[in-house]
Amino acid sequence: MASQYFATVQQLTKMLKNLDTWLDKAVAHAEKKKFDPNVLLQSRLAPDMFPLMQQIQSACDGAKFCAARLAVFVLTKPADTEKTLEEIRPRIRAVIEYCSSFKESDFDGAEARVIPLGFMPGKGVRAQDFVQEMNGANTYFHLVMAYAILRHNGVELGKQDYIGSLNLVDI
Amino acid sequence: MASQYFATVQQLTKMLKNLDTWLDKAVAHAEKKKFDPNVLLQSRLAPDMFPLMQQIQSACDGAKFCAARLAVFVLTKPADTEKTLEEIRPRIRAVIEYCSSFKESDFDGAEARVIPLGFMPGKGVRAQDFVQEMNGANTYFHLVMAYAILRHNGVELGKQDYIGSLNLVDI
Repeated sequence: MASQYFATVQQLTKMLKNLDTWLDKAVAHAEKKKFDPNVLLQSRLAPDMFPLMQQIQSACDGAKFCAARLAVFVLTKPADTEKTLEEIRPRIRAVIEYCSSFKESDFDGAEARVIPLGFMPGKGVRAQDFVQEMNGANTYFHLVMAYAILRHNGVELGKQDYIGSLNLVDI
Repeated sequence: MASQYFATVQQLTKMLKNLDTWLDKAVAHAEKKKFDPNVLLQSRLAPDMFPLMQQIQSACDGAKFCAARLAVFVLTKPADTEKTLEEIRPRIRAVIEYCSSFKESDFDGAEARVIPLGFMPGKGVRAQDFVQEMNGANTYFHLVMAYAILRHNGVELGKQDYIGSLNLVDI
């Protein structure tokens, strides 16, 4: 069962790498249109939704806490202090590096764990439910919202940028 | 390993149930604002993105094909002929019913399967990669885009509508 948790962490790590390439395209778009790319970081789809910056911060946290909590490493939530692309991109890359440091064996026994919920004292979720119902659904939420904000602002992204590389086999 | 595929299908089924509740709120919003809720089905975040209707159709297909392909049931892709909420909502519910008909044992041996790709003859992906890299990432894409379009158009949805119920345990 460790393999499925390892695969989930690898997938979220890949999605952060994809996100990093979307930001390359966002910068290129801003240069072409002659506006400051940091403007995009404050863009949102509705006034009471997170802007791009917080979508990125949340996606980073999603991937990092997925790995850490399944492997029972305690991490504190970082302060979300970034204001510019120059500040947020190293955070994305640091999380990619952190998540890439896990081995399959780090998730041995994960399926039997109950993960406590900080926002609901006395309650927790089983690892399988954490991955499926909470962390996975939530991390994709922020990844897709980041993509949606960029597309809504004219950045030229396509499904291939979203999905990234595929592990194909011959049949 | 069958359990993880079963859990994935259950999760996508739950997300379609959540989507159905988002549409309840969309209808309520349209009634309050006195516009035809079917207008929302043609809303998109960018002119070269799918409108809400196609996001819903794609999310339905994502869940259905996830279950069917892992269990090696051959299904044809339905014609996307729906034009109204009255037409698309029965499709959502039919897919929920179809996906709910699977048992864990339907996925026995799934981990050893290679799933052929219709759009890339001679190539396929392993079940684990199908779930993680392709179907999962793609189905969440369309679910979150549907949510994003509704939010962008003023429908009052929150994270709880997106996540739905959680399988909590006492600790």
